[in-house]
Formats: sequence, C-alpha cells, structure tokens
Amino acid sequence: MQSPLKVGVIGIGAMGLAMATNLHGKRYAVQIRDVAPAAVSAAARAGIGACDSPRELAEWADLLVVVVVNAKQIEDVLFGVGGVSHCSRAGKRSDHGDDQGNAPVVMLCSTISPIDSAQFGQRLAEHGIATLDAPVSGGPVRAANGTMTIMLAGDKRIVGRLDSVLNDLASKVFFISETIGDGAKTKLVNNMLAGINLTAGAEALALGHRLGLDRQQLFDVICASSGASWIFEDRMARALRDDYAPRAQAHILTKDVGLAVDMAAGAGIDTPLGDGALRVFKATIAAGFSDEDDAAVIKTIDPDFNRKKQRAPSHD
Amino acid sequence: MQSPLKVGVIGIGAMGLAMATNLHGKRYAVQIRDVAPAAVSAAARAGIGACDSPRELAEWADLLVVVVVNAKQIEDVLFGVGGVSHCSRAGKRSDHGDDQGNAPVVMLCSTISPIDSAQFGQRLAEHGIATLDAPVSGGPVRAANGTMTIMLAGDKRIVGRLDSVLNDLASKVFFISETIGDGAKTKLVNNMLAGINLTAGAEALALGHRLGLDRQQLFDVICASSGASWIFEDRMARALRDDYAPRAQAHILTKDVGLAVDMAAGAGIDTPLGDGALRVFKATIAAGFSDEDDAAVIKTIDPDFNRKKQRAPSHD
Repeated sequence: MQSPLKVGVIGIGAMGLAMATNLHGKRYAVQIRDVAPAAVSAAARAGIGACDSPRELAEWADLLVVVVVNAKQIEDVLFGVGGVSHCSRAGKRSDHGDDQGNAPVVMLCSTISPIDSAQFGQRLAEHGIATLDAPVSGGPVRAANGTMTIMLAGDKRIVGRLDSVLNDLASKVFFISETIGDGAKTKLVNNMLAGINLTAGAEALALGHRLGLDRQQLFDVICASSGASWIFEDRMARALRDDYAPRAQAHILTKDVGLAVDMAAGAGIDTPLGDGALRVFKATIAAGFSDEDDAAVIKTIDPDFNRKKQRAPSHD
Repeated sequence: MQSPLKVGVIGIGAMGLAMATNLHGKRYAVQIRDVAPAAVSAAARAGIGACDSPRELAEWADLLVVVVVNAKQIEDVLFGVGGVSHCSRAGKRSDHGDDQGNAPVVMLCSTISPIDSAQFGQRLAEHGIATLDAPVSGGPVRAANGTMTIMLAGDKRIVGRLDSVLNDLASKVFFISETIGDGAKTKLVNNMLAGINLTAGAEALALGHRLGLDRQQLFDVICASSGASWIFEDRMARALRDDYAPRAQAHILTKDVGLAVDMAAGAGIDTPLGDGALRVFKATIAAGFSDEDDAAVIKTIDPDFNRKKQRAPSHD
C-alpha cells in the first residue's frame, strides 16, 4: 500500500481547520501551522499535530495548503523568518527550468489579487517551488465535508499529480488555465458578484420592510421569484432570525470586493455596482459589524430591521 | 355540472396570450380584448375569440384579467371610452358598502406602482367593482403552463371564491395582504432586485471577459459558486449564445426598476444599487436595445462581448 500524501495546512481559521479535518478524516497525513495557540489547540482536538514554523512543515509535507487571511500573511509564511522558501528541500532555478528540488507544492487558497498571486508564483519558482493558484469557495461547512469549489490555475502536470487530493478537498474543481493569477481573477469576479447580490438583496428586503411588507413573506416570495440568488437566500435567512453569528465575517467579503474593484480599476474597467456594494460594506465595518456575519449589511441599511415593533403603551 | 368560469383577458402580449391559452386549455370559457389586430389573430389561432371593447368583455365575464403594459393602458381599459367601468353590470357604492352589482372581479396583473394600484382599486370600488392587486412573475413559458407566481392583495372572500382559477394560473399564489397596493410593492421590490442581480451579473461577466478569462468557463464557475443568481444563469446563458431574441424586452425591466426606485424615493428611502442598475438599463435603452432581450445589458457594458476574436492577418 502506498504511504498517504503528506499535507501541511498553514492558517487554521475556519476554512483551514475544516480543510485539514476533512483530509485527516480521509486518512491523509496532515499537520498544520498557525501562529495562534488557540488554532493549534483546535487542530489538536481534531487529532492533528502542528509544526513550529512553515519551514518545518515544508521539510515534511508533499503539499502545502496555504489558507491564511491575506497577501501580507502569505508573504510572511512563504518568505519571512522560518518561511517555506527557506526549507532545505527547495531547489534552484536552472537554465532549463526543471530543477524543482523536492519541495512541496504550494497551493495558495487565500483570496488575493491576481498580481500578488502571480508574484508569489514567480518568487517561489525562483526557489524551485511549484505554485498552484487555487482560491476556494463554499464556506467552512462545505470545506469540512469536501464539497467546496476550487478555482485552479497552474501547471497541468502538477494538477494531474494532485488530482486525487484536489477531488477529496472539493466536489467541484474548475481548472481555469496554466497562468498563475487566473484563479485569483475568477475568484474575485465571483466574490464581487456575491457581494453585490448580498447588498442588493439587503437593500430590497429593507425597502420592503420599511414600506410595511412582512419581512418573512417578502423573503419567501423573492426566493421563489426572479430576484432569487444563492447569497440572498443564505444570508437573509440568518438576518430574519436575528442571527449574526459569523459564518463569514463581514470584513472578509469587504476585503474581497475591495480587491475586485481595485483589480478592475487597475485594468481601466468600471464597476459601478461593485463600487456601490463596496460602499455598503465599508459602512457595515464603520458601524462596528466587522466580525459579525456579513448578513449584517442589512442592519447598516435598515437599523430597525431586527427591532420588535413597539407595543402600545400600557396605562397602569 | 357547473358551467365553467368565464374569464376575459385584456392585453394580449406574450404574458396575456400565455395566460389566456393556459386557461382555454383547462376548459375555462375565455375571451380576450386587445387593440392590436395581430394580437386578436394570435388569440384566434389558439381558438380564443375576442370582444370589441373592454366593456363588452365585462358584460360577459366573471373575472377580468388585465395584463396590459402600464398604468396608462389600465386607465384606458378601465375608465376610457368602452372601458370596464361603463359596463351595465357595475354596481354603486352604497352606504353599507356591499353593492358590488354583479360585475366581474378585475384582477390587475400588470407591474405598476402601488399608488396607481390603490387608486384603481378605489375608483373601481366606486363603480361597485372588486379589484385584486395581482402582479405576476415567471415569464411567458411559465404563464403558458400555469407554473408562474402571483403576488396577491385584496379582499380575502374574493380571493377564496377565485381560489381554483388562481391555482390554475399559477403554481405559487402568495397572498400578501388585504391592502390593494401591497401586491405591487412586493412585485416592484422583487423586480428591482432581479434588475440589480442582472446588471451586476453582466458587470462581473464582462469584467472577467475583459481580464482575459474564458466567458463560458467563468459563467460555469459562478453558477456553481456564491455569485449565483436565478437571473444571471437565465440571461447570461443567452448572452453567451449571442441570443438576444426577446423573451423579456429590455424596456420592461427598465420600467420596473424605475418604478421601484421612484416608489422608494417617494417614501424617502435610498436605493443606491437600484439607482446603479437603473443607469445601466437606461444606457441599454439609449444604445438601441429596448426591444431586445434584457440580457442585452451586457452589450452595453462590454460592446466586444459577442465579437469574435480577430484572426491574425493573412499574408497573401
């Protein structure tokens, strides 16, 4: 029997923990790395051990799944002190370009700009380390049961070698292209649209509420009509229950829509609806809802949305 | 055996014809009224006869389904020369409010403002004619097979009497309230959201296309991810086929989003994303796509969307 693929997961937030737990349950050899003791404890409770640095994890793993929050953290775990690039297994770029050493493949799953993605890929290549640009979608629940989506860009041969672990991570693996950055572009376009659909859905539901319609019934009608969208149904169902416990913190989609709008502006492309959504997200952060679920956009638009109607004053 | 309910349909556009044909096929007695000879011919080909005026239709019918384009046309068919209100069966408002004559119930299915809807209801009541505020959703295909949605406001007793024909017209009948205008409010909120989701979807797909991503693959990824919406999947599938034959002409959703934004403004409520969508729709009309399918919004945003890539010049 072949020994199991060794997978290191760097960044044990909700997504990272879910992906690590999923692979651990499917009998991969899994170790993690996170700077936060609480994250390390969470992994330990799931039976998953931790390394003391990304470099140490890189000395062991066949595949490194990077799920940290943003490009700055990726910079750190790849090229900072104790970073992946300092691993002894890293190769050197040779003239004919094929000295990959035997370092693990680095799979970048965070949502970052395609420019950052391409630059990380280039710099890792200079250390003889192969990169997959592989943003993911679907949230922690789907990550935990292996039914999330991966938008994948990178060398086809490497993708082919990792076929089985990719399909264990995600039920939908979209191979976008061999150009590092195309995965990030795809993810940002999708997330900008999700962000617009969410803020638009909140705008519509708040409008109906303020016009005196029943919130729950309006929600039901929209879900059965032409205004339906995936994120409207998912997030506004929570808002109607007054449940803003974070499955997806508001600051995350705020960041993603900001990255998408910047990417478009950098290419000279207007995104008027993306800009409008970004203003709503920024107002949501300014209102103090950064760490609540992104369903909280509706409280920014309609502060009375979850307020019970006043009873008539009693006369005693 | 009970004689079948007599249903008159006024306004034989795509929706009106589909609804009339559906009821005719279900053995209701159906007649129609339209000013356009082509519409009368289309009904005749489906085996459905026509009256020469709304008034004449009102002398015969138990239920009048009004599916004309806008409030001005409703004004005309109800109160103009030969209008429904001049029908001999109309009653008079009595002090105790129960003289409904034996005029047919008027069911207003057009998408209009709630203010217009309420005013038509009040004026019809003065003629002893009962009104249902009953905008519909789902498009001609669903109207034809009786699987569309009705958002219904009006007197519960009248709704109860018409229960069976309502369920033959639509698979989803949402009873909103007894207040005429609440159906219109619900419809406008839904359609504003559909309009935003559509223009946002076009903005996102055009962004990806201009950034060099494959249009079809990006569409597939979005449909499987958090950016998915009903109208994105429906309309952008057509845009990808370069198919702008009108199932829903661009001017219709333009009108609806305009009505929704006006309704909100009238109540002092901001709709920044609705405003943004309305600008895209107006640009679509200005670009000459008024009578094309509303999927044409994407050609307004990205004029190269359906242009084949230039081949390298030949050297002969």
